[in-house]
Amino acid sequence: MVNNKGLLIVISGPSAVGKGTICKELVKRGIDNLELSVSATTRRPRQGEIDGINYYFKEKEVFEKMIEREDFLEFARVYDNYYGTPKKNVMDKISNGKDVILEIDIQGAKQVKRNYEDGIFIFIMPPSFKELKSRIVKRGTETQKDMDKRMTCAFEEVQQAKYYDYIVVNDDLNSAVEKIYCIIKAEKCRLSRYHIDLSGFKEEL
Amino acid sequence: MVNNKGLLIVISGPSAVGKGTICKELVKRGIDNLELSVSATTRRPRQGEIDGINYYFKEKEVFEKMIEREDFLEFARVYDNYYGTPKKNVMDKISNGKDVILEIDIQGAKQVKRNYEDGIFIFIMPPSFKELKSRIVKRGTETQKDMDKRMTCAFEEVQQAKYYDYIVVNDDLNSAVEKIYCIIKAEKCRLSRYHIDLSGFKEEL
Repeated sequence: MVNNKGLLIVISGPSAVGKGTICKELVKRGIDNLELSVSATTRRPRQGEIDGINYYFKEKEVFEKMIEREDFLEFARVYDNYYGTPKKNVMDKISNGKDVILEIDIQGAKQVKRNYEDGIFIFIMPPSFKELKSRIVKRGTETQKDMDKRMTCAFEEVQQAKYYDYIVVNDDLNSAVEKIYCIIKAEKCRLSRYHIDLSGFKEEL
Repeated sequence: MVNNKGLLIVISGPSAVGKGTICKELVKRGIDNLELSVSATTRRPRQGEIDGINYYFKEKEVFEKMIEREDFLEFARVYDNYYGTPKKNVMDKISNGKDVILEIDIQGAKQVKRNYEDGIFIFIMPPSFKELKSRIVKRGTETQKDMDKRMTCAFEEVQQAKYYDYIVVNDDLNSAVEKIYCIIKAEKCRLSRYHIDLSGFKEEL
C-alpha cells in the first residue's frame, strides 16, 4: 500500500543560516534511506576530494552540453565555474526509494521547484538578523560594505520563505534537526504518498 | 513570527485498530501542550469517573439543546445515550495554544471535518485485516455473524482513508506513536501555520 518512491528534500535559506551544519547532522544521525545530493562542478578538485563523493567533476564543455540538454535540476555560474545538480542522479535515487537531501541557496531552490514540484521545500530561518549577522562575522572578516550588502540580500531572501512548504527556525541545532527529521517522517505518512490498494484486504474478508 | 494557535489532531480508524492505545501513549509521553479532548455524554457516570475529566456528564435535555444550538463538533446517539465533542472546549484550548487530540470513529471524524477543516486528520490503518480480526477476537467473544458484520464494516471504513491527511499503519505501537508525534511537530512548521512578519527583522538592518 505504501508508495516506495523516495522524497526530494530541499533545504534552503539565507547564507550563513546554518543549512550545511543541519544537513551534515541529519546525515550523521543515520536516518534510514537518507542521502545527500552530490553536485556537479567545473572547478578543479581540491586535495582529497573524490569524484562522485564530494562532487562530480566535469569539463566545462561537458557541463554546458548538460545545460543545453536540460540535465540539471538547477545550476549556477559562480565567477568562472559552474555548479549544478544533475537531474538523473537524484531521480534514480528517488526511484530506488532513497530520500535525497539537497542543500541549496534560494536561487537554486527556485529552479528545483520549477523542475520538480513534488519536492519538500524547507526554509531555514535565522532566529533574528542580529544572530545571522554574528554568524556571518564569525565566518571571516568582511568589510562593512560587504556586510551591509549581505544583510540586505539576506532580508530579500527571507521574504522568499512564503514559497516554501515548511519553515524551520534555526535557533538550536538539535531542535532544527529534529524538526526536519519529523517533517521527513510525517511526509512519508501523507495520503498523497500512498497508493491505497485494498484488494489485499478484500481477499482476507 | 510563529502562529500560536494550537492544532486539532483527529485520530480515527476502524474499531479495534488501536486508536485508544495510541492516544493514551501519546499523552503519557508528555508531549508539550498536548491534551486529550473530553467528550460529553448523557450516560450515567460509572464508579470513579469524574465530570470534566472522563466525560462532561449532561442531562438528556441539556444535550439536545446543545445539538440544536450546534454546540458540537460531532455527536452520535449510541442506543439510548448521546456522546459528543463540545465545540467550545476544543476551540478555547486551541486558542490558548494547546494541541487537542480527538480520538473518534469514522462517522465522527467526518462530522468534525465539516465543522473544522483546519484539523489534522490521521487515519490509523490496520497492518492487515487478519490482524484486525485477531484484535477484535481478543476484545471479547463475538458470534461468527457479529464478526462478519464487523469485518465488512471495517472494510467499508478503511475506504474512507482517502479523505484523511495522513495514514499511519499500526503495525507497531512505538512506531505509530512516533509517526504521530512527528506529524504534529511537522505540522507546526508548515508555512500555513506561520504569520510571517518581517518588520522585526527590518528594524535590525
